Amino acid sequence: MNIVMLGAGNVATHLSKALQKKGFSIVQVYSRTDASAKALAELLNAPYTTKTDDINSEADIYIYTLKDNALEEIIHKINLPDAIHIHTAGSVNIDVFEGRAKHFGVIYPMQTFSKSKEVNFENIALMVEANTAETTDTLFSIAQQLSNRCYKTDSEQRKKIHLSAVFACNFTNYMYTIAEELLNETNAPFDILQPLIAETAEKIKYLSPAKAQTGPAVRYDTVIIEKHLKMLENRPELQQLYKEISKLIYNKSTTNI
Amino acid sequence: MNIVMLGAGNVATHLSKALQKKGFSIVQVYSRTDASAKALAELLNAPYTTKTDDINSEADIYIYTLKDNALEEIIHKINLPDAIHIHTAGSVNIDVFEGRAKHFGVIYPMQTFSKSKEVNFENIALMVEANTAETTDTLFSIAQQLSNRCYKTDSEQRKKIHLSAVFACNFTNYMYTIAEELLNETNAPFDILQPLIAETAEKIKYLSPAKAQTGPAVRYDTVIIEKHLKMLENRPELQQLYKEISKLIYNKSTTNI
Repeated sequence: MNIVMLGAGNVATHLSKALQKKGFSIVQVYSRTDASAKALAELLNAPYTTKTDDINSEADIYIYTLKDNALEEIIHKINLPDAIHIHTAGSVNIDVFEGRAKHFGVIYPMQTFSKSKEVNFENIALMVEANTAETTDTLFSIAQQLSNRCYKTDSEQRKKIHLSAVFACNFTNYMYTIAEELLNETNAPFDILQPLIAETAEKIKYLSPAKAQTGPAVRYDTVIIEKHLKMLENRPELQQLYKEISKLIYNKSTTNI
Repeated sequence: MNIVMLGAGNVATHLSKALQKKGFSIVQVYSRTDASAKALAELLNAPYTTKTDDINSEADIYIYTLKDNALEEIIHKINLPDAIHIHTAGSVNIDVFEGRAKHFGVIYPMQTFSKSKEVNFENIALMVEANTAETTDTLFSIAQQLSNRCYKTDSEQRKKIHLSAVFACNFTNYMYTIAEELLNETNAPFDILQPLIAETAEKIKYLSPAKAQTGPAVRYDTVIIEKHLKMLENRPELQQLYKEISKLIYNKSTTNI
């Protein structure tokens, strides 16, 4: 199957490499930015273009890994070839292709991609959706070649799953960032937290996070909470965040009883 | 070395087992609660008591794993034997023992302990502090027998490190809890998030969390952010939290540039 990859960011890079590894042909990379298009095209040993008029019209699948507004723009700008068109966004409805393409769908890889960090695609949860049963089967079988964790979801489910991923990944990473900032103030290396972070992530394979909760908030240890709030006096925004999350943790623990 | 363990909760359980494994003798368990004292004592095959008057006065080390206020109470209630007295709390000053004992200190294991989940003590960061250089050496050498990651810290550093652990572990776990709640609304299993959670924790071994940040907030993708806020309309407290964390992520990313 011949694929045109539209977009050349982190998702495009990791997905293209995984597809190539499984024998799919990336026949062209499109990106508005010459440098990004070129970089990915070179990595894949594929041609590239930055002009929508030059997008290859002979491919079997067009994968859009563009930002949400760029996605809508391009779908309405070009005449979509008679092929399967899919996007990879967690939060965009499948109907973005409605009226513009006959066969369309979504493969949403739920993962955090950074250019400099390799990921094992086989463990990434892939959410698959399409406009017909036949296209769903095609996309699901492609997804299954890439990963052992494929799920059929509708747009509403996928958007909720994406929202949950923002908490579990993006907001979690921000908690790590705050921890790093606080450690910097003590001259302790961030590395000191690695075993704790690893265990916190590992533990919830065996325990529901609601049951795995530890710390001063769930124990309602007001002595420690007050000390911590005092230590955050020079960071009022973090002090506020500390208060709010602690309150939510405590409320959650009492409603569980 | 003979040890009396005061407290019989999660820290006491995991620490006692690790000490026993390395050849230390737990000669007694003390806890106010008969059931907890008995359970740990049975696990360790050691005697136990619930009465402060019956605390063994012949041991070399007394380890207090009690809650902060219970710790202060007991230190002032009993006559501390002439031995080394240490607590294991991240947030309690070493001077809690001042005037009550001659040799004292802290070994703070920075980890999240749940009774039903085994941990490998060798990877746990241990923060060591004592009132004299000699006791520091004694405690540090005990710590080194338990773990490969021992650090000498003073009370101020340790308290800051403990605060950073609250963000990196307790608050992170709460982000997982929210994700689980949202997934429950879609009937998707929490398991679907495991690879993402694992990768988020893994990634920061190679990238600083500030650099590893992904998601709508750091891209300032207001279209997605607005969609997410709308999806959280029936959970105003989470909507508020989503807004705040997103704002902080965005602010952080712009001050980094």
